Amino acid sequence: MALKTRDDYLAALRELRPNIYKFGELIEDVANHPATKRTVKSHARCYAAAQDSDLSKMYTTTSAFTGEPILRWNSMMLDESALISNMKFKRQNYRRTGTCTGAVCVGWNAMNVMWAVTEEMDTEYGTQYQARLKKWILHAEQGGLTVSGALTDAKGDRSKPPSLQEEPDANLHVVEVREGGIVIRGVKAMICGTAAAQEVFLLPGSAYKEPDKDYAVACVVPRDIEGLTIVEARHPSDKRELEDTTQVEVPDTGITQGWLLFDDVFVPNERVFMCREAKYTGKVIQYFTANYRACIGACVTGQGDVMIGAAMIMARANGLNAKKFMGKLVDMSINNQITYGLGAGAIALGKKHRSGAYFADPLTAHTNKVMVATLPYEVKRLTQDIGGGIVETGCMPSYADVSHPEYGPFLKKCLKAGDCSVESRFKAARLSEWLTIGAGVPGCMHGGGSPDGAKLVVRFTTPMEEYAEYARKIMDIPDDIHEPAVPEKK
Amino acid sequence: MALKTRDDYLAALRELRPNIYKFGELIEDVANHPATKRTVKSHARCYAAAQDSDLSKMYTTTSAFTGEPILRWNSMMLDESALISNMKFKRQNYRRTGTCTGAVCVGWNAMNVMWAVTEEMDTEYGTQYQARLKKWILHAEQGGLTVSGALTDAKGDRSKPPSLQEEPDANLHVVEVREGGIVIRGVKAMICGTAAAQEVFLLPGSAYKEPDKDYAVACVVPRDIEGLTIVEARHPSDKRELEDTTQVEVPDTGITQGWLLFDDVFVPNERVFMCREAKYTGKVIQYFTANYRACIGACVTGQGDVMIGAAMIMARANGLNAKKFMGKLVDMSINNQITYGLGAGAIALGKKHRSGAYFADPLTAHTNKVMVATLPYEVKRLTQDIGGGIVETGCMPSYADVSHPEYGPFLKKCLKAGDCSVESRFKAARLSEWLTIGAGVPGCMHGGGSPDGAKLVVRFTTPMEEYAEYARKIMDIPDDIHEPAVPEKK
Amino acid sequence: MALKTRDDYLAALRELRPNIYKFGELIEDVANHPATKRTVKSHARCYAAAQDSDLSKMYTTTSAFTGEPILRWNSMMLDESALISNMKFKRQNYRRTGTCTGAVCVGWNAMNVMWAVTEEMDTEYGTQYQARLKKWILHAEQGGLTVSGALTDAKGDRSKPPSLQEEPDANLHVVEVREGGIVIRGVKAMICGTAAAQEVFLLPGSAYKEPDKDYAVACVVPRDIEGLTIVEARHPSDKRELEDTTQVEVPDTGITQGWLLFDDVFVPNERVFMCREAKYTGKVIQYFTANYRACIGACVTGQGDVMIGAAMIMARANGLNAKKFMGKLVDMSINNQITYGLGAGAIALGKKHRSGAYFADPLTAHTNKVMVATLPYEVKRLTQDIGGGIVETGCMPSYADVSHPEYGPFLKKCLKAGDCSVESRFKAARLSEWLTIGAGVPGCMHGGGSPDGAKLVVRFTTPMEEYAEYARKIMDIPDDIHEPAVPEKK
Amino acid sequence: MALKTRDDYLAALRELRPNIYKFGELIEDVANHPATKRTVKSHARCYAAAQDSDLSKMYTTTSAFTGEPILRWNSMMLDESALISNMKFKRQNYRRTGTCTGAVCVGWNAMNVMWAVTEEMDTEYGTQYQARLKKWILHAEQGGLTVSGALTDAKGDRSKPPSLQEEPDANLHVVEVREGGIVIRGVKAMICGTAAAQEVFLLPGSAYKEPDKDYAVACVVPRDIEGLTIVEARHPSDKRELEDTTQVEVPDTGITQGWLLFDDVFVPNERVFMCREAKYTGKVIQYFTANYRACIGACVTGQGDVMIGAAMIMARANGLNAKKFMGKLVDMSINNQITYGLGAGAIALGKKHRSGAYFADPLTAHTNKVMVATLPYEVKRLTQDIGGGIVETGCMPSYADVSHPEYGPFLKKCLKAGDCSVESRFKAARLSEWLTIGAGVPGCMHGGGSPDGAKLVVRFTTPMEEYAEYARKIMDIPDDIHEPAVPEKK
Repeated sequence: MALKTRDDYLAALRELRPNIYKFGELIEDVANHPATKRTVKSHARCYAAAQDSDLSKMYTTTSAFTGEPILRWNSMMLDESALISNMKFKRQNYRRTGTCTGAVCVGWNAMNVMWAVTEEMDTEYGTQYQARLKKWILHAEQGGLTVSGALTDAKGDRSKPPSLQEEPDANLHVVEVREGGIVIRGVKAMICGTAAAQEVFLLPGSAYKEPDKDYAVACVVPRDIEGLTIVEARHPSDKRELEDTTQVEVPDTGITQGWLLFDDVFVPNERVFMCREAKYTGKVIQYFTANYRACIGACVTGQGDVMIGAAMIMARANGLNAKKFMGKLVDMSINNQITYGLGAGAIALGKKHRSGAYFADPLTAHTNKVMVATLPYEVKRLTQDIGGGIVETGCMPSYADVSHPEYGPFLKKCLKAGDCSVESRFKAARLSEWLTIGAGVPGCMHGGGSPDGAKLVVRFTTPMEEYAEYARKIMDIPDDIHEPAVPEKK
Repeated sequence: MALKTRDDYLAALRELRPNIYKFGELIEDVANHPATKRTVKSHARCYAAAQDSDLSKMYTTTSAFTGEPILRWNSMMLDESALISNMKFKRQNYRRTGTCTGAVCVGWNAMNVMWAVTEEMDTEYGTQYQARLKKWILHAEQGGLTVSGALTDAKGDRSKPPSLQEEPDANLHVVEVREGGIVIRGVKAMICGTAAAQEVFLLPGSAYKEPDKDYAVACVVPRDIEGLTIVEARHPSDKRELEDTTQVEVPDTGITQGWLLFDDVFVPNERVFMCREAKYTGKVIQYFTANYRACIGACVTGQGDVMIGAAMIMARANGLNAKKFMGKLVDMSINNQITYGLGAGAIALGKKHRSGAYFADPLTAHTNKVMVATLPYEVKRLTQDIGGGIVETGCMPSYADVSHPEYGPFLKKCLKAGDCSVESRFKAARLSEWLTIGAGVPGCMHGGGSPDGAKLVVRFTTPMEEYAEYARKIMDIPDDIHEPAVPEKK
Repeated sequence: MALKTRDDYLAALRELRPNIYKFGELIEDVANHPATKRTVKSHARCYAAAQDSDLSKMYTTTSAFTGEPILRWNSMMLDESALISNMKFKRQNYRRTGTCTGAVCVGWNAMNVMWAVTEEMDTEYGTQYQARLKKWILHAEQGGLTVSGALTDAKGDRSKPPSLQEEPDANLHVVEVREGGIVIRGVKAMICGTAAAQEVFLLPGSAYKEPDKDYAVACVVPRDIEGLTIVEARHPSDKRELEDTTQVEVPDTGITQGWLLFDDVFVPNERVFMCREAKYTGKVIQYFTANYRACIGACVTGQGDVMIGAAMIMARANGLNAKKFMGKLVDMSINNQITYGLGAGAIALGKKHRSGAYFADPLTAHTNKVMVATLPYEVKRLTQDIGGGIVETGCMPSYADVSHPEYGPFLKKCLKAGDCSVESRFKAARLSEWLTIGAGVPGCMHGGGSPDGAKLVVRFTTPMEEYAEYARKIMDIPDDIHEPAVPEKK
Repeated sequence: MALKTRDDYLAALRELRPNIYKFGELIEDVANHPATKRTVKSHARCYAAAQDSDLSKMYTTTSAFTGEPILRWNSMMLDESALISNMKFKRQNYRRTGTCTGAVCVGWNAMNVMWAVTEEMDTEYGTQYQARLKKWILHAEQGGLTVSGALTDAKGDRSKPPSLQEEPDANLHVVEVREGGIVIRGVKAMICGTAAAQEVFLLPGSAYKEPDKDYAVACVVPRDIEGLTIVEARHPSDKRELEDTTQVEVPDTGITQGWLLFDDVFVPNERVFMCREAKYTGKVIQYFTANYRACIGACVTGQGDVMIGAAMIMARANGLNAKKFMGKLVDMSINNQITYGLGAGAIALGKKHRSGAYFADPLTAHTNKVMVATLPYEVKRLTQDIGGGIVETGCMPSYADVSHPEYGPFLKKCLKAGDCSVESRFKAARLSEWLTIGAGVPGCMHGGGSPDGAKLVVRFTTPMEEYAEYARKIMDIPDDIHEPAVPEKK
């Protein structure tokens, strides 16, 4: 039965070998350790939603292979509507958690991207990658798995390709090809949500040329595979998560980013979908970013929706009518809808791949990435503008102070600003702070790649010379107006 | 045969009664008078494109009623793909002309909007409006007509509804209902492209209540109908159009905006699709703006594409390498693609109406309108930034000066900046000027309604209280945080 | 000797009664407790700079009363040049510390504002406030004191003035006027830098009318005065400050914001400069904001300068050439210089008060406040853009992980990106994080008052009707074009 | 008597030899020809203001040499207050005319710049330039002259310096040095206000090296000097100026830009202030741009003030309450005050030159130039937003149509929107159109040099490496973090 429940999911996580560290300490139980429990609970809500009559349509679908009901994040995305559903699912989940579905979204996208790329490789090389992948997809569907994904390598010296690095392990690579599988080694950096994941889908981090073919590797590994150590990165105000203040801090939601250290990990062949086909790494990046950058618009929109709500309850908790800020709330909504609408537009302008996979329009998707790296910052700024000083830099005392036996009562009586209780005002302030300058801030700028990279794609997918031709024709200019003969010195 | 040719079109225009004035003068032949010939030639290119093997797919389609090939702008838009094709057609046509397809786009949209509204009215009132409309649509398809559209009334005192105006004719209204038709009277203002149109589709300019029911009127009239006088408005640098300088000014392209004075015009019943059903005027506005504001993104994008091209050839004509401005060109492309992608997104998120008509998502479409009223200004600014002083305020001498027998040669030799000829540099400068501060500037701000109106729609289609609920739930806030009891003053 | 040294300053702080709490705990020694030592050390640098031959000119000046050398932040600002020097001092100090001189700047401004207001009150009421103030200023000069300042009250229900609050203590007020002094009670909220201050200058938080005259109070109190309890607020990632990781976290710099609980505090008359003169509270706010909002431009510029530097070293530590980001660095510099230049402009356009005090131009100063609440957010965004994922949400592991005996070496070797050491890259990332999303983020939005308040001042200091007259005259319009008779309904 | 009157000025212009052409036609009388009379009348108002008791303080001052009253635009600017007065004069004049004081401002600045540069040249070369200049300044003061200024050359191929151009006349240069003077030849392009000027101050257009020393020339010539032909450039809607519609078009105000063709013009030595001192051309540019770009902030602010007024009267003429647009009007005022305040700030942060001249701070002045090339576009956009469709692209009929005997009355009655007359609404619309998309649009982008040039100055006046040092010190980073060893390709 593919529609695993919340309990199934939590039980499955408990089965995994502990291999995640934070603050130098091994996390024995990801579902209960304060550094990881928030993201686990947050993803567990997806399983709960799949059982909820109101939400199940959004959180589940049917298998393209078996026709059986499956979790949406295990599904093939073979047409526009499937991708739009991906967006709707993400926006909705952000609204419910205020944060990222990072343990499901990259793996989901990766599997669809590789569906197309394996088809192309099989055609050229006569390999059987797609058949292997299909088998694994069926396994994921059946298991109702949470599969995170990893592209970004630690990289090292950026002026050199992986194979010329002083440190070969700065990028994940194949160190040995054995009969039954491959051995991989190296570091994937800043990988989202692995603490809540059961498996991790690995893709090459960039487009490589032939000399870097060892770095052309795609495969899936169990999160607790032998040889893999995960170190969770710090994030803003993460020490608050270690405090036992569930009644005042943001509970049950959050995301993690980890460094994945692969120390000679053996991956059996049936889980390997690319091995040294450097030529196809460019396709992986191209297809991946097209769909990923179309859909992330929905994530930041969903969080923006919560910021509208947070600003409204904060205004009211401050004793002010939220309508007073209507102009700003409308501006926030416009900013939100731009990234959502652009994502949907990129999908609507997309194309079906020969393999059946569907990919969004690159120019629009990368335009969206640039917006995703810009507009949410303005939405945060407006959230702070509306919320007042106590959300901006978190000028609220700690709960230990507010509940202090001596001076707590004096503080409390003066913290009340309207009808709403001090505790509620306190929580509202913490939410705005968490969303705008705390652990709830997602990686809009570099998550899924940098805006500068997106601008490069915009540059090369905009047919600029064609536009120059249109201009020339409108004016009936007979000359071919070309670049000046003498090259510009820079 | 529905695929009328360029010659058919021009011949049909010649048949019309002259009823258009500019500068106090009656224009006898719209296709040759310098004040209107540019827009006629611009629209004539649509007919030419419909015969062009490369472009015919974009400029034609098949009738939903007869299955026969028809001009695209006479077609029903019954699904997402039809609306996306509307956008593609507009962007492409803007690329070819640098300007607006204003004589076809409003009428086309109006006919589709009324398809839905007539269905609703017929259902409630037992009227036969849709049957009438279908008959007219078949006539338009068959005739390959160019049909402009008119919503905006002259309005008068904006604090009062039409029926309370001192001047009843400030808004178009029904003055008499006769056996065979109705008599209408009043003024439609700033109507685009009527000089190039054969018919005009009239819609109510706003959502009206019962006391204003006389103003609830939708119908189509021939452009030269008895009692209709059209006065073309001025636009920037329009006197240049009267000069005989085809070799230096922007030729064969442009748009017009006119004031339509209806002085007791009789419209036969078969051309009337709404008469005093005030209740449905709100639906007209709602459906119209949803699709219109989704699709205008494509117009400004198409002009933006030409601005990229114009900036490139201007840079080169100035003796500079266009690559020097790559950062700005990429920013222009991003701005362009935002309005295009948002339009496509609004369509992808749209819905099918019971009648078969398809309407874009209002929140996304109105978000797009706000962008359309903002981003093209930045694209223009960048065009001027790249082009240099001679495009910014048109600091280029007149052609009469450049070709003056005495000082012309001195001017000319110093106007040469690189390989390209003086004439070409001259034309390139005129194009940038025309696009950014001349007659080529479209009405991005108020065309199709004001951005403030769009913000109102954003406000009321954003489920703000629902977002406040999400925020409350994420924090487990038990209170219902409501607006403060004491109302905000001011 | 007025030029107290760093050691004098630290010794003076040690003398004070412990009355500051954080996390429910009393801080015995502000100079060494991790929650407050950073801000104390940061301010101690001002004393060190006053002794430094390169910097002393910027950090000291001569007394307007005695002609003796004094610390700059104890000085009267009687002309443009004194205010510009205030700006230069702030920018420079921000460059050295990356953060706010919050323990000196508000008190300094308050004392100058009260110099003018006491003169006005003395003139009207025959009081002797200015003489008292002068005596206190001489004491402050002589003692080389660090004097923070407090305006913002806890406020309570914002729809009501202080005297109608359910909770009178939500705003600081006079509860008793005795022979030798007054008793004050209530809460000042989010007050900057008191942990590093020796005294606190209290001003009314708003312009009050007669019924609120008890809230019209200005005075100075020792930071450890009997009856005063200070609770330090939380700020982003403040728990990191408790860790003993001086080699990796941002050391020796930072700022605090506290809640000041006045529980019937007696203030002797010689320290009271306003008591129930409600009429003059408006002047306090007007003069205070004019100078404060002119000068804060320098603060955010100074931090912006550090962000330019942080972005550059981060790029290099990532193995990239900082020149690659020159366009962004130039944009950051432009944003920085806008707030600095506008501040200087507000001062240049200012006026001398009858009392000798000098005040900046309100329209320009409040325009600057709006920029201060906007531009630094863009500078932060660009810092994150340049720095990459590891600074954006702090995707760097903890130092405990990096130095972990088992997996630390693997992490470390892959964290190296260029010539620079892992430790340096680590520190560079922490600095960018601290500046953009950590404890180094200043309160640009609401610190010194909200941008909405500033917009109100812009509204009322812009002579809009006069501008309408200019427009009318340019066109020779004979009518008086007035607001329409029928009022707009909203 | 130096305070020449309006009549003196007009009489002096009449004395000049006709040498200005537009549309291929010689303009016999600049004060009455429709192509130039607007700018002449606009400048004549300066003379009128100098006699006006309210304004004389702003429009006149006393000579630094003789102590006698002189016109402000003939004065030396030897301190901050003189430069601030320059700004105030410009803002005020823009408010009265809606346009540029282009015939006085460049010459005025040029004379002050050359005061410093001649001092430096005289010191190095033992020349007597400053004495000559002083003599000319006394002549200008005494004559109450209007002196325009010219820097920009036609330039030619921008990849080459002037001396390597195929066409040597593309840049103004010395062709012969005779006993009593020099002969100059070449083209100055897009020079503002010469039609209203009595003399023209010529400066080198760029910083030149030794091989281009013939292009290092500064001198003043009478506007009608033998061998000089001026060709006025076109500007938006300039044909309207030829119509006799003084009652409806913008009257008595405007600006011109001309191409100055120097065909072997002899300039006597006493009017020559630089001749082949290539080394000092860089100083000319540096000093000129510092003051010019500080002060232009006042110009665009003054026009922005008029745009606020124009938007207000347009709203009212449309029948709407201007308060409805208060948020936008406040944003306009903020944008205006930024460029004004930044200009004042650049001046306040400036320095006195050894010669006595005073120059604004380059970093702030060039930051201001970038704003001047950005913010006024937004102010225009908001003017169009508030004004409605009839101002945006000028969708108002011509006056010939409005007053047409047949359909005019119908148009007129429907053009009335509130209390104000049709004529007044008509004029209000024309003013907004003229300001935002007509002949009133000033050259904010490239006038006084391009924003890209300003960004280069920002780049080189921002001490970026010093900022990197501050960042390094704050973190106690021991490494010298330098640019990566391997140079970035591309």
